[in-house]
Amino acid sequence: MTDIEPPEPNGDIKPLAVALGDPAGIGPEIVAKAWDARFDRNLAPFFAVGDQRSIEKVWRGPVQRISSPDDAIDCFADALPLIQIEDTETITPGEPDMAGARCALDSLELAAGLARSALVGGLVTAPIAKAQMYAIGFAHPGQTEFIAERCGVANANAVMLLAGPTLRCVPITTHIPLREVVDHLSIDLIVSKARATDRGLIRNFGIEHPRLAIAGFNPHAGEGGAIGREEIDLIIPAVDILRAEGIDIVGPFAPDSMFHARARAEYDCALCLYHDQALIPLKTLHFDEGVNMTLGLPIVRTAPDHGTAFSIAGQNLANPGAMIAAIALAASAARYRLAAL
Amino acid sequence: MTDIEPPEPNGDIKPLAVALGDPAGIGPEIVAKAWDARFDRNLAPFFAVGDQRSIEKVWRGPVQRISSPDDAIDCFADALPLIQIEDTETITPGEPDMAGARCALDSLELAAGLARSALVGGLVTAPIAKAQMYAIGFAHPGQTEFIAERCGVANANAVMLLAGPTLRCVPITTHIPLREVVDHLSIDLIVSKARATDRGLIRNFGIEHPRLAIAGFNPHAGEGGAIGREEIDLIIPAVDILRAEGIDIVGPFAPDSMFHARARAEYDCALCLYHDQALIPLKTLHFDEGVNMTLGLPIVRTAPDHGTAFSIAGQNLANPGAMIAAIALAASAARYRLAAL
Repeated sequence: MTDIEPPEPNGDIKPLAVALGDPAGIGPEIVAKAWDARFDRNLAPFFAVGDQRSIEKVWRGPVQRISSPDDAIDCFADALPLIQIEDTETITPGEPDMAGARCALDSLELAAGLARSALVGGLVTAPIAKAQMYAIGFAHPGQTEFIAERCGVANANAVMLLAGPTLRCVPITTHIPLREVVDHLSIDLIVSKARATDRGLIRNFGIEHPRLAIAGFNPHAGEGGAIGREEIDLIIPAVDILRAEGIDIVGPFAPDSMFHARARAEYDCALCLYHDQALIPLKTLHFDEGVNMTLGLPIVRTAPDHGTAFSIAGQNLANPGAMIAAIALAASAARYRLAAL
Repeated sequence: MTDIEPPEPNGDIKPLAVALGDPAGIGPEIVAKAWDARFDRNLAPFFAVGDQRSIEKVWRGPVQRISSPDDAIDCFADALPLIQIEDTETITPGEPDMAGARCALDSLELAAGLARSALVGGLVTAPIAKAQMYAIGFAHPGQTEFIAERCGVANANAVMLLAGPTLRCVPITTHIPLREVVDHLSIDLIVSKARATDRGLIRNFGIEHPRLAIAGFNPHAGEGGAIGREEIDLIIPAVDILRAEGIDIVGPFAPDSMFHARARAEYDCALCLYHDQALIPLKTLHFDEGVNMTLGLPIVRTAPDHGTAFSIAGQNLANPGAMIAAIALAASAARYRLAAL
């Protein structure tokens, strides 16, 4: 990423829907704190989707119940707008239960539905607790896969992009054991993820000609086959296909030498082969500001790149930085999409 | 690493031997530039071991040939002391050849010999070119293994530690294909590398009770077995053994969440399972200042954590930051060892 990013368009987007996630996690607190920062950070209007009581347990500011997304515009300056989801009996911050998981799922479902119907500018999701979600029958690995399915997009075409102030990166494989990554990698997978990344950068970030850089898989990118062959067998052939299509992609680079400041200035997004190859540099640099954006969907979708943090929930300790960044990035992406219409 | 590191002792160490590495690489230039910075950076006396002509090709400062390490003390303020190794015919920066590789090997051998004989405070090595070294029959993967053998230390007990201003880390496996890492990992290997790291931090950094943190192998450190079992089968048992011995080691931690500033403050050294798990955060944070130190040897040995950079050799473009840091760290380690005698 360079210092000179394309100027953001200034269109009037619809309000953003922010699903509160697990009511016992830090979701309600960081969404409320993001609203507190609405003027300082110049945030576009958004509204919460979830149980009002989960916010009141952790925050003393004004909440305004609304029944339609458009109502958020009028009250956003004075109160946190909220569409109420009532599926919990008691809520105790830090103590997740199945009723809370049902509430999180209902919130996600409603917010995703509003996004699919184009009634909102985009969807932002606070974290859920996977164990509790699985216990109530949630059959997706995470919210991303649920949303992709609701949007009718195959998982191979939905791409997780991580964004911080000075780095964007895409892990081509995600939550699988490291020893199994080689079994999942293929030329086809690399090509389809790179294509979706290229399109996603144009669409959501307004980058006319995205510059992609791909990491090697092995130490020193394999040193010409001396330390592993995935570069020769998979990555270089994929790069050749992509370049022939006109996609500006370079690499594979030695994985340890492409994330320092001078290297980052040379590309708009790094393509990484496995989860930690992308997440280690992102979180080393931007632990409190990382945003997870799903590319390849018909809707705009972002999320803070952290979990429910039950251990600090309800103690006013949660840092809203990543949620604020997720809301800002969703608004920015919505504006780029609007401008391109 | 915390801001409060143990105070460095102030003993009078012997001069450091700096092997110039490949004469066609950036080694001669960065060693000469380090000498230029001797007052600004308060560097302990050191002398070069290599061919004087390789320095004169790239630098116009004064060189003083010496015949014994002790002579370096007297002339260090006024000239770069050098023990001459003559095994090259012509030297062209940026164009490595076999004569240069022989010169690099002779320099390394002499400098290592001086260190083993305790005639110098420590050994610093500039980069060599592996392809040329292999061509002249060098049978070691790198300089570290050569030095370990000369010191009579088995490779399993020699540990590569990477150090930057705010991070120390040890890769438990190094230059092997990523898909083969699982075949090399064992409880024994983790235990022996952690023990050597613990002792090395006491001996070379003066840390009385080193705090070690070990990374998981899989995304999210495996989530209790859901995303891989190396944490359960290998890392946790190793940690249990080490803790029973009184070594202060914690983890395994999610690999992506242990290298941001707050996390780094909680440990003195991170133990990583594979090359890029250690090198990505180190080089992301400290690309121009990374030092490679070999722990587990009877001698002090450091090196700048970069290669020969033939493409920029002879153009006065090389950044001496890592070489300066390597010299400073060798001197500091020598002082801690002296103080402990």
